[in-house]
Amino acid sequence: MERATAKEPAGKAGQERDQVHVFAPATAANLVCGFDILGLALEEPGDEVFMKRSDQPGVRLLKITGDDGRLPLEPSKNTVSACVQMVLQHLKREDIGIEIELHKHMPIGSGLGSSAASTVAGLYAINQLLGQPLSKHELLPFALKGEELACGHGHADNVAPSLLGGITLIKSYDPLEVISLPVPKDLFCSVVFPHVDVPTRAARQMIRSKIDLKDAVTQWGNIAGLVSGLFMSDYGLIGRSMQDVLIEPIRAILIPEFYEMRETAMASGALGFGISGSGPSVFAFAQSRNQAENITHQIVQHLKSKDIDSNGYVSAVNTVGPRELF
Amino acid sequence: MERATAKEPAGKAGQERDQVHVFAPATAANLVCGFDILGLALEEPGDEVFMKRSDQPGVRLLKITGDDGRLPLEPSKNTVSACVQMVLQHLKREDIGIEIELHKHMPIGSGLGSSAASTVAGLYAINQLLGQPLSKHELLPFALKGEELACGHGHADNVAPSLLGGITLIKSYDPLEVISLPVPKDLFCSVVFPHVDVPTRAARQMIRSKIDLKDAVTQWGNIAGLVSGLFMSDYGLIGRSMQDVLIEPIRAILIPEFYEMRETAMASGALGFGISGSGPSVFAFAQSRNQAENITHQIVQHLKSKDIDSNGYVSAVNTVGPRELF
Repeated sequence: MERATAKEPAGKAGQERDQVHVFAPATAANLVCGFDILGLALEEPGDEVFMKRSDQPGVRLLKITGDDGRLPLEPSKNTVSACVQMVLQHLKREDIGIEIELHKHMPIGSGLGSSAASTVAGLYAINQLLGQPLSKHELLPFALKGEELACGHGHADNVAPSLLGGITLIKSYDPLEVISLPVPKDLFCSVVFPHVDVPTRAARQMIRSKIDLKDAVTQWGNIAGLVSGLFMSDYGLIGRSMQDVLIEPIRAILIPEFYEMRETAMASGALGFGISGSGPSVFAFAQSRNQAENITHQIVQHLKSKDIDSNGYVSAVNTVGPRELF
Repeated sequence: MERATAKEPAGKAGQERDQVHVFAPATAANLVCGFDILGLALEEPGDEVFMKRSDQPGVRLLKITGDDGRLPLEPSKNTVSACVQMVLQHLKREDIGIEIELHKHMPIGSGLGSSAASTVAGLYAINQLLGQPLSKHELLPFALKGEELACGHGHADNVAPSLLGGITLIKSYDPLEVISLPVPKDLFCSVVFPHVDVPTRAARQMIRSKIDLKDAVTQWGNIAGLVSGLFMSDYGLIGRSMQDVLIEPIRAILIPEFYEMRETAMASGALGFGISGSGPSVFAFAQSRNQAENITHQIVQHLKSKDIDSNGYVSAVNTVGPRELF
């Protein structure tokens, strides 16, 4: 993957600029047991936005690459430009002209928060361009509206970690409260996106709206266990808590080789394994980068033996979130 | 309440004794949002067990006080003696004779873990008498069996905190995994037991076995928030997380003045308020002993104005669990 080198953000707060080039990371939502409330930011993949001022007022989306023509260029329909418009409206800066290029370096509909990465890249870019008038937490509600536009539901479990970095907990939606959880220093992520088509909306719709209280209790024991494990840097507890009795059994039906991938991951030393977001990407925690590399490699090889192409990623937890590229 | 003074346990590990006198604490289970998985030990009230050896083999329950004759004296039917029998069987010490007195210093069917306190007192006593052959974690499965005998279900959310002390998370039942959560230093508990009859079994049976996934997600956001708040000593977050959208609306129906008690507690500075266990006792967190005293006082006064008698308690979180009395 081609990517410019990162360095510290150039723009000081209050200082407006003519152009910015930013990266926003992909995310793994749910972390197996925390459906709709937990997520983390990855080092890779992610999306890039190039944004510059223009003399002509209004927001224009000039170009999208890497989307195979699947995303709308109409500014009000694309989450990137629509969110930028919302921010300008909020700041009463609709007089200025903005031109955007979106470069997607990650698969769409993969369960890795593709729309969230684009949304966050756009929001981070406009905020940097205008000299950081808003905090990241102030940008979050705009990102939620972008998710609603792109996915039909305003969930925060991808946009929150992409924007804030690290591991995030959506404590509540009304009011919106997002908590940054600690990131144990030896925690690494293995992510594999198998090239099979699982539309996010369909995957969501398969989930039952009524569940057994008994299963919910099992689930919240695991959620509390995972959160405790993160605070205690207890890798064993983190792994033992990565179990999903509610959503995974249903979503796994749509993911070929899911249980074989789990077996491969666990045999390769994964702490825990499950679906990233609504899939088909899968996700494992490991206790070193080497181990995560091995897990990713073994899963990719297994899929290859079944004639399924895939993208494999290895990543620390990205504690920064979006950043400028130069 | 009469009670002997506590001091450090006298018996050394490995050293058997002829008699022991122990106290085991009442508990507040659920902590509002953590149905069946969270609980904490109180400083008061609690139960006392006086246990001594006898020349005649077998376990005998000589006397129970404070139960208004409601508890069985038949050794195999009372959780205290039955658990002691199980431990002796496990240790292959059925040859020895044990005589037990149980002094209940807390209401039965109050939602404060009455049976759990008795069970734990008995288990702690026999283990001390025999020179601590078992660890507290090894005693836990026996306590679960005692709960099953006493309540018809083997839940750990009262016995775990009573036995281990502090705030406990039942991460899972199969296998049983209990995690001790941190106790923020300024956290105090206000507990009020209104003298109204809410049988535990009936209260459990009112709870629906099917719930909305949407509500479950709200609930696990709060659980994760509460656990995070405990680790971060973030009292505001602890309070904001003490919300129960699933169980409380149903159980509150059985508790007269429930919402008025909440209003009173919150107006008196409570961080959060809810039902203790299956009620009718109510429970609030406060950020100082003074504040907890005020909350308890205000609730008791409110109930009095409605002609409802009650017992009020104020307590730090009891981080010790059961202890010897002299």
